Amino acid sequence: MKHYLRLELSILKENKMRVAIVMGSDSDYDVVKGAVEVLKENGVDVTVRVLSAHRTPNQTHEFVTEMNQQADLFIAAAGKAAHLAGVVASLTTKPVIGLPIKSSTMDGMDSLLSTVQMPSGIPVATVAINGAKNAGILAMQILALKYETLQDRLKEMKIEMEKAVLKKDEKISKMI
Amino acid sequence: MKHYLRLELSILKENKMRVAIVMGSDSDYDVVKGAVEVLKENGVDVTVRVLSAHRTPNQTHEFVTEMNQQADLFIAAAGKAAHLAGVVASLTTKPVIGLPIKSSTMDGMDSLLSTVQMPSGIPVATVAINGAKNAGILAMQILALKYETLQDRLKEMKIEMEKAVLKKDEKISKMI
Amino acid sequence: MKHYLRLELSILKENKMRVAIVMGSDSDYDVVKGAVEVLKENGVDVTVRVLSAHRTPNQTHEFVTEMNQQADLFIAAAGKAAHLAGVVASLTTKPVIGLPIKSSTMDGMDSLLSTVQMPSGIPVATVAINGAKNAGILAMQILALKYETLQDRLKEMKIEMEKAVLKKDEKISKMI
Amino acid sequence: MKHYLRLELSILKENKMRVAIVMGSDSDYDVVKGAVEVLKENGVDVTVRVLSAHRTPNQTHEFVTEMNQQADLFIAAAGKAAHLAGVVASLTTKPVIGLPIKSSTMDGMDSLLSTVQMPSGIPVATVAINGAKNAGILAMQILALKYETLQDRLKEMKIEMEKAVLKKDEKISKMI
Amino acid sequence: MKHYLRLELSILKENKMRVAIVMGSDSDYDVVKGAVEVLKENGVDVTVRVLSAHRTPNQTHEFVTEMNQQADLFIAAAGKAAHLAGVVASLTTKPVIGLPIKSSTMDGMDSLLSTVQMPSGIPVATVAINGAKNAGILAMQILALKYETLQDRLKEMKIEMEKAVLKKDEKISKMI
Amino acid sequence: MKHYLRLELSILKENKMRVAIVMGSDSDYDVVKGAVEVLKENGVDVTVRVLSAHRTPNQTHEFVTEMNQQADLFIAAAGKAAHLAGVVASLTTKPVIGLPIKSSTMDGMDSLLSTVQMPSGIPVATVAINGAKNAGILAMQILALKYETLQDRLKEMKIEMEKAVLKKDEKISKMI
Amino acid sequence: MKHYLRLELSILKENKMRVAIVMGSDSDYDVVKGAVEVLKENGVDVTVRVLSAHRTPNQTHEFVTEMNQQADLFIAAAGKAAHLAGVVASLTTKPVIGLPIKSSTMDGMDSLLSTVQMPSGIPVATVAINGAKNAGILAMQILALKYETLQDRLKEMKIEMEKAVLKKDEKISKMI
Amino acid sequence: MKHYLRLELSILKENKMRVAIVMGSDSDYDVVKGAVEVLKENGVDVTVRVLSAHRTPNQTHEFVTEMNQQADLFIAAAGKAAHLAGVVASLTTKPVIGLPIKSSTMDGMDSLLSTVQMPSGIPVATVAINGAKNAGILAMQILALKYETLQDRLKEMKIEMEKAVLKKDEKISKMI
Repeated sequence: MKHYLRLELSILKENKMRVAIVMGSDSDYDVVKGAVEVLKENGVDVTVRVLSAHRTPNQTHEFVTEMNQQADLFIAAAGKAAHLAGVVASLTTKPVIGLPIKSSTMDGMDSLLSTVQMPSGIPVATVAINGAKNAGILAMQILALKYETLQDRLKEMKIEMEKAVLKKDEKISKMI
Repeated sequence: MKHYLRLELSILKENKMRVAIVMGSDSDYDVVKGAVEVLKENGVDVTVRVLSAHRTPNQTHEFVTEMNQQADLFIAAAGKAAHLAGVVASLTTKPVIGLPIKSSTMDGMDSLLSTVQMPSGIPVATVAINGAKNAGILAMQILALKYETLQDRLKEMKIEMEKAVLKKDEKISKMI
Repeated sequence: MKHYLRLELSILKENKMRVAIVMGSDSDYDVVKGAVEVLKENGVDVTVRVLSAHRTPNQTHEFVTEMNQQADLFIAAAGKAAHLAGVVASLTTKPVIGLPIKSSTMDGMDSLLSTVQMPSGIPVATVAINGAKNAGILAMQILALKYETLQDRLKEMKIEMEKAVLKKDEKISKMI
Repeated sequence: MKHYLRLELSILKENKMRVAIVMGSDSDYDVVKGAVEVLKENGVDVTVRVLSAHRTPNQTHEFVTEMNQQADLFIAAAGKAAHLAGVVASLTTKPVIGLPIKSSTMDGMDSLLSTVQMPSGIPVATVAINGAKNAGILAMQILALKYETLQDRLKEMKIEMEKAVLKKDEKISKMI
Repeated sequence: MKHYLRLELSILKENKMRVAIVMGSDSDYDVVKGAVEVLKENGVDVTVRVLSAHRTPNQTHEFVTEMNQQADLFIAAAGKAAHLAGVVASLTTKPVIGLPIKSSTMDGMDSLLSTVQMPSGIPVATVAINGAKNAGILAMQILALKYETLQDRLKEMKIEMEKAVLKKDEKISKMI
Repeated sequence: MKHYLRLELSILKENKMRVAIVMGSDSDYDVVKGAVEVLKENGVDVTVRVLSAHRTPNQTHEFVTEMNQQADLFIAAAGKAAHLAGVVASLTTKPVIGLPIKSSTMDGMDSLLSTVQMPSGIPVATVAINGAKNAGILAMQILALKYETLQDRLKEMKIEMEKAVLKKDEKISKMI
Repeated sequence: MKHYLRLELSILKENKMRVAIVMGSDSDYDVVKGAVEVLKENGVDVTVRVLSAHRTPNQTHEFVTEMNQQADLFIAAAGKAAHLAGVVASLTTKPVIGLPIKSSTMDGMDSLLSTVQMPSGIPVATVAINGAKNAGILAMQILALKYETLQDRLKEMKIEMEKAVLKKDEKISKMI
Repeated sequence: MKHYLRLELSILKENKMRVAIVMGSDSDYDVVKGAVEVLKENGVDVTVRVLSAHRTPNQTHEFVTEMNQQADLFIAAAGKAAHLAGVVASLTTKPVIGLPIKSSTMDGMDSLLSTVQMPSGIPVATVAINGAKNAGILAMQILALKYETLQDRLKEMKIEMEKAVLKKDEKISKMI
């Protein structure tokens, strides 16, 4: 019966799937929009914020606390000594996807290691350097556990990707 | 109403949460057991397999196809040119957690890059090199979207971790 | 006698030497054409396909299975977490040449390690990052074991390369 | 006379020099004690805590807030995705010395980059991987701006180091 | 009243805060000016010199000796085998901030390692590759131990940074 | 009888398959024997030499010239600035497999880059660092173009590897 | 008088100082000319050749053999798997300066490691990536052991460099 | 007769060949002795000192100034941020051989880059990480320009190395 009640609540809440996206600098948005777009196109609500683990620690804290209630998961994008995803992960038990951003030096290696090499207990689900679209798709895959209609969409996207590759394949075949 | 029906089905299926774990070599198990243990301790069913993306491609394919129905998500652990997580991800739309294993050369860098630097469209949620416990906890965080009781357990674990650190803190304070 | 028959079959088939080339993305073709050209110029049949280990795993599987009968060896080109060569190698016992493609981050290091650091049992014959021409020449060197006329061509090419260097040598000598 | 007055003021303020040292794990203490010892030997008060940026974010926050009043500067030691120094630096305007700890993979490179590559606005004064003694000496050099007697001690230490090297020089000379 | 007395003392001593900045090449100035500007804007006197550890060892020696009397701390910026900060540190017991400059090869890794990996006894407080503004802010944080008015300025700067991030946050929010 | 006929043919053609293996130092043999064993077990003749590109350039030259007539392909194993495979490749148009050996520093990275990053025109088919068994199997795959019976053996080996993995899979399954 | 006699001997021997410079590709000349110029400006004879360790092994061999009689030392410049300096060093007991050239991938790291990590017995005196001018100056420093007039020139150059730095120092001082 | 005269001159000048060796720490001597031994065995005088660029800058300066008169060249060995060779090179126009020492972190990469990546004007002739014997042989090769008898010794050593390799070659041949 408990289960039944929760369902009802979910319906009351219009059971909206939502991802909280936070990036360390507005200059990261050129990359991050790849995640925003894939989520929006697939009916996922996104809250996008520019907040810095280091320059706005309190607002970051507030944002995570607030989103803990409203969002199903987090995406955190940052470059250099990229602590943002780790800071978010320290304040929530929701899944946190880390998106390392390539900055002007070190070719993204610093961002990748700072994001992925998390200590035991506080995982960050890290995607490729600048891999924003994958951050969005991974978010959808996680949401699909709860919102099963997304599964169908993911399967369609896989077929679309397949078709896109095969189209390119055909084009190259004709070229040679 | 659709929703109601699904619930019923879930109950019929005894709605068991399950993670499919696959590793590239049995020697990886010393690391991987960190994930197995945390999941089992928290009531998550695990299926653990030794399957190689390269040596048993067909069985890997079959395993993913089969688990697609039964498991909520995958954990794939491999070293060196660690393709296993990518291969699993190519065959499912469920979340795939990649666990890079440190091998005898390159200090885990090859495993990390081979796991995390996935092309657009096929994400792998990568954790730290040899970060097995985090792979388990990330799995729980993802499962908790669907199986909400896990959320409570994750919050307890966060408090336990906190206490463990504070205990060590106290010990050091006394030492100095 | 078996040998005789096989020989005859070879003649019937016009014993055509053939290389199956597969790349992970059509954008790789700018590099890969270096291999295509050297092979075509030397009378080697090439089949060129755009197929992704991750986005079109089934077509990749079919392609390798089909080419197993028709091609003498494979060249697989991919960037980032470059699994393509490994996936091809897992499905054939023909030689597989891996061509790591430099992508937008990590200066090709991810592609190189993902291609070369293969686990025991499944080798990939890796050439330099973006070393497409060398992939083509290595293919010819391998084919020359079976198609001996290629040996002569390889020796000529070596002499041509030598001459080209000496011509440049002469030019520089005059400059200084 | 100028000097006399300042001294008096120091007494009025109970002007005790103090360094707040925090490390991410008690296992880091084997390294960190190098800093503790050099500071204690030179009359600097140290407060040593085990607090994790990720596992005890609130206590870390409280510790920094509290120490902001009591300590002159911070030393933060952590390994892997070493966010601790950055988190401390985000919460204070006192100098923060970052001590990257070598962990079981990546030879300390992840710790170094996570500590030193801080974004504009929030510096961390980073010393060598496992360079605990240098963290202590750098702390003394910074303190010496305010507590001038430390300058004399630093000069003595420089002479002692010099002598130690020359003694070894003499030993080697005799050996050869 | 305590505060009042100290202020007076400052005046008696003509207690001018000063940072000695030295860079290995005039081409480094494009980066280094980030430090110069932040210091000047905040009322810190700077002496800026182009001196090479290798090409002008004697002048570097003289400069450090001279500045030892006049400056509170040093900032040394250099690229490639960046010895400048280490050489300065070997000749003073004042704090030395090392600013690694990215040069035409190695993406700054050589500069970073040459600056930060100092042997025991001679610390260099290293900031991020090309992190000039942070070198300036770290200098201010260190100076603030002695010149307490700078503490207020640092706190203001922290608030300004916070506001700048929040402004960008607002801008992005409107965009999406 | 099939076998008998084939043997006869071999004798007629004096059709002996042979691999020339050269290593830079006798200490490399601990690794290299992995290649020797797999080749010998499968009926491939091996000539194994210790010759240094740098210490015995003339003998290396003579060896390659001589083996050009007798061997079908080369395997060259070396560590550090591993030029041996490149030197062999410069003197032959037969396929050259490069086996980078991990030495006491740099974790094999120097050996890998020195072996794989060959200039255009002179390919080296590089396998993983210390990947001796793969060097042997790759040699078999290349030889199998000419000596077709090896194809059967390679297919058997692939099945054996598969079985070995499945056996370990079963063992782990029982453990958990 | 001693000096007088030696001078006379020099004349008797037609004692011309000469450096043999070899580069792997004519495209390297843009870098290499930095060495050529510094040597020519200082009266050192240079022989400059484009010869590839891999594409023209015999001519490289002949060149080294011939130059062994005529040149005092060698400079060898090459990129990628840069074997040229090692090959030259294997054929002479004269000093060999290795100049690693940055190529289109790996930021010169492959060239550096391939040049410097020489096995015991065959040293290559390696300078910085693209450090052509330093290759020339090092050559002069070595030649100066035999041709003492070069010592004076080197000392002058050191003073000129010093002056050049001080001039830039003055310029910057005025700017600030 | 020409030869005779030179010999006489040598005697007049007490023409003793000498190498000044300096290392940053006495713990480096385990590696450095490889250079000392090869030089002593071949009749080269060595002066060996433990002096630190950072801990004994003045003594290092004095040592270089003094040795400038007495030694023909320098060998400088150091680890981590290995500035010693650069500091020596800044104070002399004699050739300086840099020997990077592997320390407890970073596998020697920091030492190598700090030694080899010297700025234009001040070359350091760098050998392999821990390549002490090569530092000694390179010193001999440089000395041989002035002291021609060393040329004969170097040629003998080359033959001895050749023989040693061939002996190992024979041993392996018998084993297989």
